[in-house]
Amino acid sequence: MSRPRPLSGFPEYTPDQRIVEQYVLDRLRETFELHGFASIETRAVEPIDRLAKQGEIDKEVYAVQRLHAADDAKAELGLHFDLTVPFARYVLENAHQLSFPFRRYQIQKVWRGERPQEGRYREFTQADIDIVDAGTLAAHHDVELPLVTLQALERLHTDLGLPPVLMRVNNRRLAQGFYTGLGITDPAAVLRQVDKLDKIGPDKVTELLTGLGLSTTQAAACIELAGISAADGSFVDRVRALGVTDPELDAGLELLAAVVETAARHVPGRLVADLKIARGLDYYTGTVYETELVGSEGWGSVSSGGRYDSLASDGKTTYPGVGLSIGVTRLLAPLFSRGLLTASRPVPTVVLVAVDHEETRDSAVAVAEKLRARGISTEVAPKADKFGKQIRYADRRRIPYVWFGAPPHSEVKDIRSGEQLPADPDRWEPDTADLRPTVSGPA
Amino acid sequence: MSRPRPLSGFPEYTPDQRIVEQYVLDRLRETFELHGFASIETRAVEPIDRLAKQGEIDKEVYAVQRLHAADDAKAELGLHFDLTVPFARYVLENAHQLSFPFRRYQIQKVWRGERPQEGRYREFTQADIDIVDAGTLAAHHDVELPLVTLQALERLHTDLGLPPVLMRVNNRRLAQGFYTGLGITDPAAVLRQVDKLDKIGPDKVTELLTGLGLSTTQAAACIELAGISAADGSFVDRVRALGVTDPELDAGLELLAAVVETAARHVPGRLVADLKIARGLDYYTGTVYETELVGSEGWGSVSSGGRYDSLASDGKTTYPGVGLSIGVTRLLAPLFSRGLLTASRPVPTVVLVAVDHEETRDSAVAVAEKLRARGISTEVAPKADKFGKQIRYADRRRIPYVWFGAPPHSEVKDIRSGEQLPADPDRWEPDTADLRPTVSGPA
Repeated sequence: MSRPRPLSGFPEYTPDQRIVEQYVLDRLRETFELHGFASIETRAVEPIDRLAKQGEIDKEVYAVQRLHAADDAKAELGLHFDLTVPFARYVLENAHQLSFPFRRYQIQKVWRGERPQEGRYREFTQADIDIVDAGTLAAHHDVELPLVTLQALERLHTDLGLPPVLMRVNNRRLAQGFYTGLGITDPAAVLRQVDKLDKIGPDKVTELLTGLGLSTTQAAACIELAGISAADGSFVDRVRALGVTDPELDAGLELLAAVVETAARHVPGRLVADLKIARGLDYYTGTVYETELVGSEGWGSVSSGGRYDSLASDGKTTYPGVGLSIGVTRLLAPLFSRGLLTASRPVPTVVLVAVDHEETRDSAVAVAEKLRARGISTEVAPKADKFGKQIRYADRRRIPYVWFGAPPHSEVKDIRSGEQLPADPDRWEPDTADLRPTVSGPA
Repeated sequence: MSRPRPLSGFPEYTPDQRIVEQYVLDRLRETFELHGFASIETRAVEPIDRLAKQGEIDKEVYAVQRLHAADDAKAELGLHFDLTVPFARYVLENAHQLSFPFRRYQIQKVWRGERPQEGRYREFTQADIDIVDAGTLAAHHDVELPLVTLQALERLHTDLGLPPVLMRVNNRRLAQGFYTGLGITDPAAVLRQVDKLDKIGPDKVTELLTGLGLSTTQAAACIELAGISAADGSFVDRVRALGVTDPELDAGLELLAAVVETAARHVPGRLVADLKIARGLDYYTGTVYETELVGSEGWGSVSSGGRYDSLASDGKTTYPGVGLSIGVTRLLAPLFSRGLLTASRPVPTVVLVAVDHEETRDSAVAVAEKLRARGISTEVAPKADKFGKQIRYADRRRIPYVWFGAPPHSEVKDIRSGEQLPADPDRWEPDTADLRPTVSGPA
């Protein structure tokens, strides 16, 4: 067996990177649970026909099939490409035993057969929050979810030094109402072209729009609408000034203004209305969100989502939802590859108990058990080497303390300062700061 | 879209079951980290040729392929069926940046295309600990790992009421040395047949052994060896009494005696030497472990593993390891399906803040933020219904407290006792026991 090489698009972390990732996932979980979201996990696979229904994404699905299935058998299962489609299925399947509105968070890996590049992975971790209700879902949840997400991301900014974020929000009803008000018959087609603004620029989009049959005046109005953005409710007047009226446009303006104004009070500077945001996935029907890292906009959106009013329906009841997903891998992997996120040590261990002779290993184990019983992560040295070598074992892993001997003659050495003091394994405490590995970021 | 039905073999949990699972996973992580194991995760897929090398398991592998791959393309990737094979690959790939001996834990899902039945799943969660070294791995790790695993399982027994366990341990060198000492030329073939003892009984196994060319005396000695078990070192004399000598037999006896005797001191009553244990996987070369739930032996092994001396080798260096895997799904799913494991509530929420009118929602949000800032999980009522209806919202989710009003006129009601008292959101504390959902098991 030769030395294996990494699979492109499937990032794996070293133990100290994993400590950083666990830190981030623990903080996300804390924030979500503080807001009353319950955790669920769904299986990794969904029926392919259910996955394929969601627009153009089916080309990216990984099919799954038993290796010894008949050669001509068609794969019926695929790996989920996001957590929203499986969640909608979970809600339908378990509706009889869930209480609505149902608030859930879900932190899992997802898979997409995309061409790998920085910021695009074939396997990556997402952390989603969603609220679904039976029948209708109150509009204030569209305001609540970005606040929770921004609070989670703000914590990573202040605690870990990740860059601050800017969330850009739009409402599809606003844009589609505007297009309808302009007399356009296929607003969805227009939305798909306007979505390309950032990539190809206004001239090319105008061309595409007139290609769809829009007049130059209509196309110009669409481009003008997409150019509007604001950190407060002032965008409403700017849209009104374009002179288009439509009831769906009104509804969209009102909803978007509520999101922006509430965010301006709770998380000032972190959220703007941006009327060119469309989001690719077909299942969004109202508010849409995307989020960039300030200063690293090129990495793409690190948190996206939106409202989906008809993703989950069993024919009798519809379960509208709104959700946001944090791209944990997209947030962390580029920082790891630049060496900008590190843990203070690659192990949880606080103390290494040295072993005098292999015959007295059991007494070292007894010391370790006493320390562990009080929550202090402890290893016993793997070999009764000379003490200098055992200290190097600790040093290489940045384990802060080495313990020598058993009570009543035991001592503990802080290998950073070299200070060595008598200590009782039933009472000794490390510095609180040493109890767990700490993490530090780019700041 | 009709109501979807569960996929057989892919268990999914309700939110309150998931709280129990998270509790269990958190306890396992704590125990592993207390013993200095570092977390890693590996990608879900491995090259199929690497998966297929591991003996007879390849028929159970799920192949993974892009849905739009060419029709005649052969799948090159498969979902991992355990965490040991990916870990061995990870060690080889990252050997240059790991410190040896390397102690890791890994809690992830694995997939097997098996026929689903109780205790057999197609997707399930495993929690593994392993220690690998470069070149040689000290024998005392074979003693250490079952102690850590038993400590983890004992915590689930005492804290959660899961049944106690009994770990059965053997050593392949013991059995194979014994067979060699008997003059048998293919000891591995004998081991495979003896492994069937529990399923088909000694008469059938004797038949199979004589079918392999063993004399009736040889076969009888193999059956006799397999019948030996003991909770202490006494099994050594019983093996010696069979009159077979061989250096590998000696080494195996010594190693197994060390495991049993150390366990008898540290976790009395939880581990026995059982000389019929073989474990199916071909990569084990020494100590092998399996673990049953006392009283539910029929559920199969809930924790298995062993030593593998040559699983990871890059041609120059070999990385021998020893590991144990806890079958988290196998442990929990049967208890869930019997309703024997429950959480005190299906949400993390401690307090529901009632909303008087939709116009004052923002003041309810402000109260919630104050509570969350002090670590108290809080939801704001989704609708400004009559208070009775808002209390029912909390009651249905077993949220213990409902908050009314904003300071200075705010009050909190314990909806279990009905007691309602003035409270300040900057100071009020719930009962400590209410701060998180609690879990309870069968005991």
